[in-house]
Amino acid sequence: MQDIFAYIDEHRPRFIERVQWLCRQPSIAAQNVGIPETARMVAQLMEEVGVRPELHATDGAPVVYGTVGNGAPTLLIYNHYDVQPPEPLELWESPPFGAEIRDGKLYARGAADNKGNLVARLCAVEAWLRTRGHLPLSLKFVVEGEEEVSSAHLHQFVRQHRDLIQADGCIWEAGGKDIQENPGLYMGAKGILYVELEARGANRDVHSSQATIVPNPAWRMVWALGTLKDRQETILIEGFYDDVVEPTAEEMEHLRRIAAQRDDDLRRRDLGLDQFLLGVSGLQLIKRNLYQPTCTICGFGSGYTGPGSKTVLPAKAIAKLDFRLVPNQRPDDILQKLRTHFAQHGFADIEVRLVGAEHPARTPVDSVLSRVVQQTVKEIYGRDPVVSPLMAATGPMHELTAQFGIPTVGTGAGYAHSNNHAPNENIRLDDFVQHVKHVALIFERFAQAPNGAA
Amino acid sequence: MQDIFAYIDEHRPRFIERVQWLCRQPSIAAQNVGIPETARMVAQLMEEVGVRPELHATDGAPVVYGTVGNGAPTLLIYNHYDVQPPEPLELWESPPFGAEIRDGKLYARGAADNKGNLVARLCAVEAWLRTRGHLPLSLKFVVEGEEEVSSAHLHQFVRQHRDLIQADGCIWEAGGKDIQENPGLYMGAKGILYVELEARGANRDVHSSQATIVPNPAWRMVWALGTLKDRQETILIEGFYDDVVEPTAEEMEHLRRIAAQRDDDLRRRDLGLDQFLLGVSGLQLIKRNLYQPTCTICGFGSGYTGPGSKTVLPAKAIAKLDFRLVPNQRPDDILQKLRTHFAQHGFADIEVRLVGAEHPARTPVDSVLSRVVQQTVKEIYGRDPVVSPLMAATGPMHELTAQFGIPTVGTGAGYAHSNNHAPNENIRLDDFVQHVKHVALIFERFAQAPNGAA
Repeated sequence: MQDIFAYIDEHRPRFIERVQWLCRQPSIAAQNVGIPETARMVAQLMEEVGVRPELHATDGAPVVYGTVGNGAPTLLIYNHYDVQPPEPLELWESPPFGAEIRDGKLYARGAADNKGNLVARLCAVEAWLRTRGHLPLSLKFVVEGEEEVSSAHLHQFVRQHRDLIQADGCIWEAGGKDIQENPGLYMGAKGILYVELEARGANRDVHSSQATIVPNPAWRMVWALGTLKDRQETILIEGFYDDVVEPTAEEMEHLRRIAAQRDDDLRRRDLGLDQFLLGVSGLQLIKRNLYQPTCTICGFGSGYTGPGSKTVLPAKAIAKLDFRLVPNQRPDDILQKLRTHFAQHGFADIEVRLVGAEHPARTPVDSVLSRVVQQTVKEIYGRDPVVSPLMAATGPMHELTAQFGIPTVGTGAGYAHSNNHAPNENIRLDDFVQHVKHVALIFERFAQAPNGAA
Repeated sequence: MQDIFAYIDEHRPRFIERVQWLCRQPSIAAQNVGIPETARMVAQLMEEVGVRPELHATDGAPVVYGTVGNGAPTLLIYNHYDVQPPEPLELWESPPFGAEIRDGKLYARGAADNKGNLVARLCAVEAWLRTRGHLPLSLKFVVEGEEEVSSAHLHQFVRQHRDLIQADGCIWEAGGKDIQENPGLYMGAKGILYVELEARGANRDVHSSQATIVPNPAWRMVWALGTLKDRQETILIEGFYDDVVEPTAEEMEHLRRIAAQRDDDLRRRDLGLDQFLLGVSGLQLIKRNLYQPTCTICGFGSGYTGPGSKTVLPAKAIAKLDFRLVPNQRPDDILQKLRTHFAQHGFADIEVRLVGAEHPARTPVDSVLSRVVQQTVKEIYGRDPVVSPLMAATGPMHELTAQFGIPTVGTGAGYAHSNNHAPNENIRLDDFVQHVKHVALIFERFAQAPNGAA
């Protein structure tokens, strides 16, 4: 692989410019900003490196599909070209779509999640083709544009093109190093139910002196939310935990290994916390993080939140909630239970709007691909990977791979301060280049592995 | 008075331009926008009409004090030149500081609260002086610039210049017609305690997948607020109601008269409500509105509230609360009780910041000035006034007049759709002109009244 690695080192500046070029194009799915433009840019990038692109329309964002290479095995690569909203803008140290490089890091919304990884994988293809003239396996790229809005239309592509997805394994969109610089891998994902709640009062904002007689939707929302979760973090929706399954013995073994590897205090101090939620640590911390579902207020907005005082009784309050779901919870079932809960607790006036839904996913922890990636991590990073059966985050893994039994492994160029979904998102350029090399090595080793049972 | 009324009708266009001129100058106390500029403009207006202005510095906004006329009696006139924040801007049909006239209404933040009234009163002085060459009484204007932020520094002016305030009565800043077009008067005001609450979690926004282990300040705020008031609108802060006094028999008599005058259904439908809060109506509605204290969420902000989904665990949540206080509650006492409440209920982590405080105020319902204003209302408006012992809103009445026993009456150019503190604030031009005439007539009648005991 030295020829390929040398090529990667030689072309590092150009590869980094590619990431900047893609990051400078906003592609905010939630706000419908720049989506088709970015899809075309991804297709252009594919052509540059030698991947044949196809743009597949959906009722939402186009899916950019790409193929390269011949023969067995077939490796699927999943990425997305959309990004989270950049707000709050005032907390960014450089413009979120400026892709500025400072101290060896590239700062941009989407740099870590997920444009850096996407570009890295395409650069790995280029390195193979320019160095060897061919790939040792078949690659299929699925690059969607709605991952950050629960992959709202990916299912349309999947249902129409089942054949285009068929593969012996899948490299998932992202991953990275933890705060101890240990590279993490995962083979499953939590699901999600994202809802927007709205409470309404009078037909317009009124002077707060009328609060004795005019209903306040901000209070309604506070009271309604208060019925969803108690201070011990127990979610109070009837039947919410019915389908939650405990980790298997094999999964618990992985959790024990993770707990042994992890320095909780380092993470805790880095987040500026006196303790983790409910004071958990060690095995309980990792078990809770991966196997407990959540009910999170991602946003609450009502009335005046600027400087000083405004004495207003707001006409409306909205809250955005995400429920991270674990096997075998189903988002449609939880949505129904949420609606029933509000009706039964006297909050039928709270409107519940579905924003996004994804099933949780599990794929085999010990597949051929998983063993290949664990081994290549050691070679590239010189460290043992931290292997998580599930990740705490969500993606369309059920939709794209898990439901078809395709073994899936997440790995990528992120690190503990990548600030995914937060201001000042960034990747370290060295991590990016390492990921290019890692993916190039995965191509070779997966091609060489006996592709029998996972 | 026909000579003076004729002058007012003749100069109506110029008077209205004065309101536009003053409204086009933003003067947002909460955001420290345009305050000294507006104070100078008020002084300039005073000079134009023949009032001698003095600018009195405070540690906050300057107080514009003005005098005109000689001899007994002395009438104090209280107004303010600051305005509420104009947000939310997207709900305005014309720019909040554009002072656009449409369908006989002048739209601007501050048009009703309180620049229209201020200009009307100065125009009444001009009409007297240009028509008769003198005023029949002594006038003292106190025009402050921090009314919308709980008159934060007015006490500095009052304590240094007790003599400048001494008067036989005071016309308060504002008032207007209810939805049945009946002019309202009031002789007291609720107090206020305005606080900003802040809850903090991690030192930065994090990916919402970490919600199992990282505390969420939005949840902390929801739970903390949930301990303050129950769904039956009972405020749960220990001792909150201790100093609340019931209305006197005389006050109840006024409330009964108001209840008989008011068409609750008209108000209710106008606000788009199925029912008033807790289903109250009639005497209970007006009693509750004037004699019950409140705890109002004026604003709640945390995380992402833009379109679509953002899966973020916010680092911070803020809430703005106003407590409207009734006699004999004291804002300092309520603030202490709020802090104690949070400490005792496990929310010592919620920071409580004092933003503003004012005492409730009562002045005599049946003073000489009150009788004069009730009579002049009948002459100018051709209707009986709706006489409220208290208003539901707040002002520095305790600070400026009530503590010194100066009888005070509120009246003004507002109406049921003036939208004070809300988008599309406006006054009807005809109401403005009526108020100019009404004030001019009050000058005459108060000068003629026997100024004995109130």
